[in-house]
Amino acid sequence: MVQLNEEILHKVITKRPEISHKGTFGRVVLIGGNQQYGGAIIMSAEACIKSGAGLTTVITAKENHSALHARLPEAMVVDFSETKLIYQVLDKADVILIGPGLGLAKEMALLLKGILNNQQAEQWLVIDGSAITLFSDYKLSLKFPAQTTFTPHLAEWAHLSGLSFVQQTNENNRAKQALLGAKIVLKSHRTTIYDDAVAYYQNPLGNPGMATGGMGDTLAGMITGFLAQFEKNTDTIAAAVYLHSLIGDALAKDNYVVLPTSISESLPRYMKKFATERN
Amino acid sequence: MVQLNEEILHKVITKRPEISHKGTFGRVVLIGGNQQYGGAIIMSAEACIKSGAGLTTVITAKENHSALHARLPEAMVVDFSETKLIYQVLDKADVILIGPGLGLAKEMALLLKGILNNQQAEQWLVIDGSAITLFSDYKLSLKFPAQTTFTPHLAEWAHLSGLSFVQQTNENNRAKQALLGAKIVLKSHRTTIYDDAVAYYQNPLGNPGMATGGMGDTLAGMITGFLAQFEKNTDTIAAAVYLHSLIGDALAKDNYVVLPTSISESLPRYMKKFATERN
Amino acid sequence: MVQLNEEILHKVITKRPEISHKGTFGRVVLIGGNQQYGGAIIMSAEACIKSGAGLTTVITAKENHSALHARLPEAMVVDFSETKLIYQVLDKADVILIGPGLGLAKEMALLLKGILNNQQAEQWLVIDGSAITLFSDYKLSLKFPAQTTFTPHLAEWAHLSGLSFVQQTNENNRAKQALLGAKIVLKSHRTTIYDDAVAYYQNPLGNPGMATGGMGDTLAGMITGFLAQFEKNTDTIAAAVYLHSLIGDALAKDNYVVLPTSISESLPRYMKKFATERN
Amino acid sequence: MVQLNEEILHKVITKRPEISHKGTFGRVVLIGGNQQYGGAIIMSAEACIKSGAGLTTVITAKENHSALHARLPEAMVVDFSETKLIYQVLDKADVILIGPGLGLAKEMALLLKGILNNQQAEQWLVIDGSAITLFSDYKLSLKFPAQTTFTPHLAEWAHLSGLSFVQQTNENNRAKQALLGAKIVLKSHRTTIYDDAVAYYQNPLGNPGMATGGMGDTLAGMITGFLAQFEKNTDTIAAAVYLHSLIGDALAKDNYVVLPTSISESLPRYMKKFATERN
Repeated sequence: MVQLNEEILHKVITKRPEISHKGTFGRVVLIGGNQQYGGAIIMSAEACIKSGAGLTTVITAKENHSALHARLPEAMVVDFSETKLIYQVLDKADVILIGPGLGLAKEMALLLKGILNNQQAEQWLVIDGSAITLFSDYKLSLKFPAQTTFTPHLAEWAHLSGLSFVQQTNENNRAKQALLGAKIVLKSHRTTIYDDAVAYYQNPLGNPGMATGGMGDTLAGMITGFLAQFEKNTDTIAAAVYLHSLIGDALAKDNYVVLPTSISESLPRYMKKFATERN
Repeated sequence: MVQLNEEILHKVITKRPEISHKGTFGRVVLIGGNQQYGGAIIMSAEACIKSGAGLTTVITAKENHSALHARLPEAMVVDFSETKLIYQVLDKADVILIGPGLGLAKEMALLLKGILNNQQAEQWLVIDGSAITLFSDYKLSLKFPAQTTFTPHLAEWAHLSGLSFVQQTNENNRAKQALLGAKIVLKSHRTTIYDDAVAYYQNPLGNPGMATGGMGDTLAGMITGFLAQFEKNTDTIAAAVYLHSLIGDALAKDNYVVLPTSISESLPRYMKKFATERN
Repeated sequence: MVQLNEEILHKVITKRPEISHKGTFGRVVLIGGNQQYGGAIIMSAEACIKSGAGLTTVITAKENHSALHARLPEAMVVDFSETKLIYQVLDKADVILIGPGLGLAKEMALLLKGILNNQQAEQWLVIDGSAITLFSDYKLSLKFPAQTTFTPHLAEWAHLSGLSFVQQTNENNRAKQALLGAKIVLKSHRTTIYDDAVAYYQNPLGNPGMATGGMGDTLAGMITGFLAQFEKNTDTIAAAVYLHSLIGDALAKDNYVVLPTSISESLPRYMKKFATERN
Repeated sequence: MVQLNEEILHKVITKRPEISHKGTFGRVVLIGGNQQYGGAIIMSAEACIKSGAGLTTVITAKENHSALHARLPEAMVVDFSETKLIYQVLDKADVILIGPGLGLAKEMALLLKGILNNQQAEQWLVIDGSAITLFSDYKLSLKFPAQTTFTPHLAEWAHLSGLSFVQQTNENNRAKQALLGAKIVLKSHRTTIYDDAVAYYQNPLGNPGMATGGMGDTLAGMITGFLAQFEKNTDTIAAAVYLHSLIGDALAKDNYVVLPTSISESLPRYMKKFATERN
């Protein structure tokens, strides 16, 4: 298991090609935010767009459209009720995130199932929050596990893996990851990334000022934004995880609590710093 | 009676435990904001979240959801009409605030009554603004007075205590507090905190630039956020009161009027300052 | 006619009394903003609250409530349709502003008429924008002219006074002001304030970068906020006019266009500067 | 073909006349933003207002009104459904922009057709985004081509001109522009402006950090704002194109991705800089 360090940022955050357009940096669809948890998908969208995804569409409850646009006119928006349009938008997506603030309603399980069934050979998928619980509860399965990432916290991992907290040893986690085939970002005090039956990376950063609602939604948005524009692999996911904590640690020097939205706010400057140092 | 000073901040604002998660810093439910006074509960939520509460749900009128999320995606939201969901959310709360912008409608009196009846042995309760008036008008009673804090201004205290303005001597206030059993934050030019039949603390800070609508809502949100994450006692309430004025005084050096939202904006930096000095 | 200078700010912007509460600095009601012009009353509200009014309620179309709260939770809000509540709120007002973005619908003429009829002996009234046109069109009259201020631009003044542009000489304007009895803030390249049949003050400041939609709404809000907390007289109106342009000139040093909302943003700092220099 | 440089900014961004009012700097109508793409027209409006247009009305779907006002109270707003009011507002416009986020619904084609038919001898028109596609699909025609600007990206130009990507040589583009008669801002890695059968200007600036959703909407808003207040000609369009990239390049020095809204935010300062250097 490798401890992540700044090398991963220099490796992943490449200089953008001079001849490019917004499509070059990926089409993203973010799905989440019911009436109660609308803020979650808004925070994911801020992280995704401010990390540099080319085109971002948010599928969420109608109640959240106005607040999303008030904060982030850069996002496009589709309502949960517009089934036909949802699948049109999904068809063109390079990366899909489902889960932040999605809730556990049956319709959302059906939507998740539909998305899993329609995943295409080139599409990457990030499954976060309530969608992990729904995936477990409804015993759903993956079409392209290697292109799929789960981002559970410890309780969601217990549910998904069937491992109780004490059973969540590195070895057991690796075995369960191998069974699922998907990449696992196991969020905790020291987040670990599992892939290819190996505990690939551990994140040495992060601080207790980051323990506040929305921090995971922001991380999920960053992972999605990174996958949209950089190479689609475990390194890219690890870079998002590491940068999320690195910014959180920097902000915690002056702030008792680190607001998730303040991490997203800082993304363009930090990413430039690591891209510039390298090139 | 002790004059509050910076000691109270060093005492209360502890360094966060390294191994922690958002639940560690408390689940908060904030209840308020009818159609007319929606801004009040938004300001409470900003103060609560920016002071570091772990997870914050706002129960408010549907009309306020969008503005809340536009300002503060970190909050979750439930509508006044969703009775079942309200009690589910309340069941898991560590600290509950009711009152900012709640208004005096009968349904709100019923909601307050329901909350008082359902208060649990471990739950702390802050009763502010209209909820103090409703408590008085409907002659409601407390299940766990020692875990309950009222934050009246002078007129609300007159109503709650039955003491006219001239009768509001320190001695009379102490007697009435003893009768109620709850902690009293009596807001005025120089806010006084009563508990255990004693005028525990007086706040020497504050300035007339803070005399603007929303300042009390912000204080109520801070008290709630502090109770969620620090020891649940009178010192913690006093620290919130003192810091609220300390920031207000700092901002008043450069600003003729101090906006309540600018106090909340400053919370993470000021709390870090006092936490850091100590550790 | 006196040229305004910084003296007027030192004279009007007094140090706030130590023993005070939000009521000390006035209860304001702002009326305006139909479906098309909602931004106007939002800008008035920002100017009013950031200039230091104690308690501000905005009466506006339902469509504008959410944006108002998203920008300014410090404001309270009432819908045009809630007639009973409107008059309850108006009864307690110290200063009322009607007009910004109100539009010319008949219902608005009725509302204006109702407000004029209900004006109380202690209440001050500011009539701006569409409300000036409605006042002229419906030939309405004032109950307390000396407590009323009109803030027309040149075309609105032509309509109100019956003076064509070429007839708008200083002498003719003075005569018409005497007839109306109300104070007149005649907005132009160099705004002039008329009262007591005299051209009291002329404002030497202002710049063409301020010629953008919303600048007048912001001035109306400032005048209202100043009347709410300072002595209710022509000097106070003049101080608001002068400060509005002084800030506009300062911002124009670095900005090609001066956004109205950036003037409001600067109010607390500028007001502090002039209050502090004096005391 | 001339490479654009800072000269164009000094030439176009004139010192504002001292005696002026908001009408002096143009009445603008911006049309766009359906339910899915509301953010696009909001970003155009921010660019238009912050570049200094005098009065700006946005015609958009009802769902977008609240977010528009929350970000930009300086804008006025009319709903797509208010046909009569739309044409009243259009009648008074100096410059009209149609297209950002408009979508391809049939009603929008009808609206575009209506606007083209009603264009007046003094009105300038900017056709962007979906409106270019609708113009091509419905084979619409222009009343005043010389007062009309299309702002296609390469795919939209292929559709409008009938030229495949490989056919889009400078010569072919010039011929097609001559046929259309309208000015063409052909957006790409290095944007080219065609007029009078000539490739007038090429923009040497711009960077891949600007390749993100909303960048074109912002440019369209800037062109519209510039035409509203400066001389209505190709130079003015070129100045907007050049400044858009110049600010984008400046922001890209510190930011990995350049948010469209951050370009608009910077407009007043940059425009002042070039206006000041000249005068």
